[in-house]
Amino acid sequence: MLITDLIAKKRDGFEHSREEIAFIINGIGNGTVADYQLTAWMMAVCCRGMTDTETAYLTSAMVDSGETIDLSDLPGVKVDKHSTGGVGDTTTLVVAPLVAACGGTVAKMSGRGLAHSGGTLDKLESVPGVCVEQPLERFKHIVRETGVCVVGQSKNLDPADKKMYQLRDVSGTVQSIPLIASSIMSKKIASGADAIVLDVKTGSGAFMETLDEAVRLAGVMVEIGKAVGRRTVALITDMNRPLGMAIGNGLEMKEAIEVLSGKVPYDDPLTSVCFELAAQMLKLSGLAADKAEAIPMLKSAIESGEGLARLRRMLVELGGDPSYVDDPEKLVSVNRCIPIRAEASGYVAEMDAKLLGTAALLLGAGREKVEDSIDPAVGILMKKRYGDRIEEGDELAVFYVNDETDLAEAERLFRLGITIRDDQPEPLPLVYDVIE
Amino acid sequence: MLITDLIAKKRDGFEHSREEIAFIINGIGNGTVADYQLTAWMMAVCCRGMTDTETAYLTSAMVDSGETIDLSDLPGVKVDKHSTGGVGDTTTLVVAPLVAACGGTVAKMSGRGLAHSGGTLDKLESVPGVCVEQPLERFKHIVRETGVCVVGQSKNLDPADKKMYQLRDVSGTVQSIPLIASSIMSKKIASGADAIVLDVKTGSGAFMETLDEAVRLAGVMVEIGKAVGRRTVALITDMNRPLGMAIGNGLEMKEAIEVLSGKVPYDDPLTSVCFELAAQMLKLSGLAADKAEAIPMLKSAIESGEGLARLRRMLVELGGDPSYVDDPEKLVSVNRCIPIRAEASGYVAEMDAKLLGTAALLLGAGREKVEDSIDPAVGILMKKRYGDRIEEGDELAVFYVNDETDLAEAERLFRLGITIRDDQPEPLPLVYDVIE
Repeated sequence: MLITDLIAKKRDGFEHSREEIAFIINGIGNGTVADYQLTAWMMAVCCRGMTDTETAYLTSAMVDSGETIDLSDLPGVKVDKHSTGGVGDTTTLVVAPLVAACGGTVAKMSGRGLAHSGGTLDKLESVPGVCVEQPLERFKHIVRETGVCVVGQSKNLDPADKKMYQLRDVSGTVQSIPLIASSIMSKKIASGADAIVLDVKTGSGAFMETLDEAVRLAGVMVEIGKAVGRRTVALITDMNRPLGMAIGNGLEMKEAIEVLSGKVPYDDPLTSVCFELAAQMLKLSGLAADKAEAIPMLKSAIESGEGLARLRRMLVELGGDPSYVDDPEKLVSVNRCIPIRAEASGYVAEMDAKLLGTAALLLGAGREKVEDSIDPAVGILMKKRYGDRIEEGDELAVFYVNDETDLAEAERLFRLGITIRDDQPEPLPLVYDVIE
Repeated sequence: MLITDLIAKKRDGFEHSREEIAFIINGIGNGTVADYQLTAWMMAVCCRGMTDTETAYLTSAMVDSGETIDLSDLPGVKVDKHSTGGVGDTTTLVVAPLVAACGGTVAKMSGRGLAHSGGTLDKLESVPGVCVEQPLERFKHIVRETGVCVVGQSKNLDPADKKMYQLRDVSGTVQSIPLIASSIMSKKIASGADAIVLDVKTGSGAFMETLDEAVRLAGVMVEIGKAVGRRTVALITDMNRPLGMAIGNGLEMKEAIEVLSGKVPYDDPLTSVCFELAAQMLKLSGLAADKAEAIPMLKSAIESGEGLARLRRMLVELGGDPSYVDDPEKLVSVNRCIPIRAEASGYVAEMDAKLLGTAALLLGAGREKVEDSIDPAVGILMKKRYGDRIEEGDELAVFYVNDETDLAEAERLFRLGITIRDDQPEPLPLVYDVIE
């Protein structure tokens, strides 16, 4: 096989065989495929697409490029959850302990935040002492002890994805459903879970801006999961506004603790989406027949305090200081809390999640580049939701600030991201679709 | 401007501005565009295409990437000719001296042969002593003295094309009309000619296998020429068979000398195509109103011996031994001449120019890789043409051989390339179209 022939084949819109895709992906590791050949091929994939079968072959070849985690010595169905990335979206910190409290086994490898979207590892590290880099045996030990553990991705997992991701970023080949789907699913599959619940965000703050794109991506990922024998379900959820009230790592950890403490109403958007995701995880784990059976289990895990107890225990096992869970105000101790007040009366008619996420980033809550550091305590706490009535001068949000360098620009972006109108807007759905 | 944004723009099918294309091409030279970005962008061009305007901007940016040859101090209209590459196609060696003999000024930079197709520089070097690397002033001096000079391309001409061509070859991005057209035209334009006659080959032995592709390529190149103020015409000519009877460098030089000596009938395919090309060159040079006026001029340049005299003088100026022109048998002095006889009776119904060219390459007449050396004397002399009647045991061709290592394989490919059938085939056109 010649790599130039394979590139030309995809350029001309033909379908690759399993062997051809394995040849390309193996070539990344053994040096027979140069960077300039890989980017040309990925661009051909962007332009010509891939069938579901090709995408499944690609995913398998990527999984085979590195080490795979064997979780078979852990009890029960190991269930994982992945979000395509959102703003104010701290579902993992709620869902993972709740599912564990209901008897599930959640062994999850997670990522860091980039640009306007947050990452679970950064949120975990808002609790001082937490170390998300754990040896595999220690990770498994924590899962065995508490039913849940979330850590960083093993260094040797899916090296083909690392190379492809790095090159896609600099070669204009990010926007391709087969490449996005295989990147996500290869990491999930290599991480060893038996069942995967995908949260595919759609809307202004999401990677997939249109519902149609989100549904297509979800469909491809569910097919990949099935093709490799993993139970997979995808929810399409809304990211036209931040999901919770908090944007920032400590603020989101605090919000998760509040949800698990029962301090947030069950019909709150964040809690509702958490219940939807957790219900799917319980269903795939074989612990609930359907959503109707799952929801009361989840509510009782909150009411008994078992969900919060699981989160606390996991954080302690990871080295975290439990006093931050017991007194979450410690998570958000900053120099200044600055109220941001409405300049007009009306209804919160639009919230641009991307702009609000970028405003929080400017306060120090996120990173523009992977090597940037993060301030865990800072960020934005919304005081109003989408659709709420507000009067001029009322608090729209509170900025939690330590470094005021970019404060003015953060406020400018924040205000740009909020539209107040006279008419109350139509309610937005939280969950658009379930793909299974 | 960010290169990733420009790549994504082409990926999504949008049109580049002049500034955007200049940014990309300048980036090749100044190192801001990495190889893996250039191949991704070129693949996007392969898949999404370019408008004629974009292709003209691309060509101009490539011309500007290096030095340009100023021929304005030479008299008259400087006319150039370019072929997309064929087998047994020695038109330049006939056409360039003939046009000079009719009063034209032919200042041409040419290339070498690769794979099954030949190159004019290799044919010139079949005359011992010829040196095709000449300083610019010496090149101009020869044009001034003899009206014609063909040399190798200046090293500093069009460096962007060198880089792009090299990367296209290894990244599956060769087959793209805008990239092919800009590669050819940028070199022609940088070489300084006022007028350009393009010979776009179509058929089994050509780069553009279908007539439709050839017409599209020709149309794009003629538009580029017009856009930069060069008089440009393209002929679409047949390459479903070798054009002349000779395949090999000395053999083709000998054939050109025979045409210029009047030893070949005017209705012979090679001579006919030479007349068509030369007539266009005279027309663009303002020396003939049309083909009807040009043909008698060309015939009289053969009959007077002036055409041959120009070729001889040019070869001498380039350092060549004139005794090889005076006694062309010296060009093809080899160890063995092996007759290849027909194994059946019938008509020569198909001649696969690519296979015949590859057979000659195996005898040592061509090169697989740029660094391979060539034996100028060896090759194939056809004894029958497309459509000729042949009896079993008659000579189909003669192999001129020095090294017999690949002789058996050469004969196998040669026989594979010739189809003898009972019925006489339909005549093939020589010129399909003139694009101006």
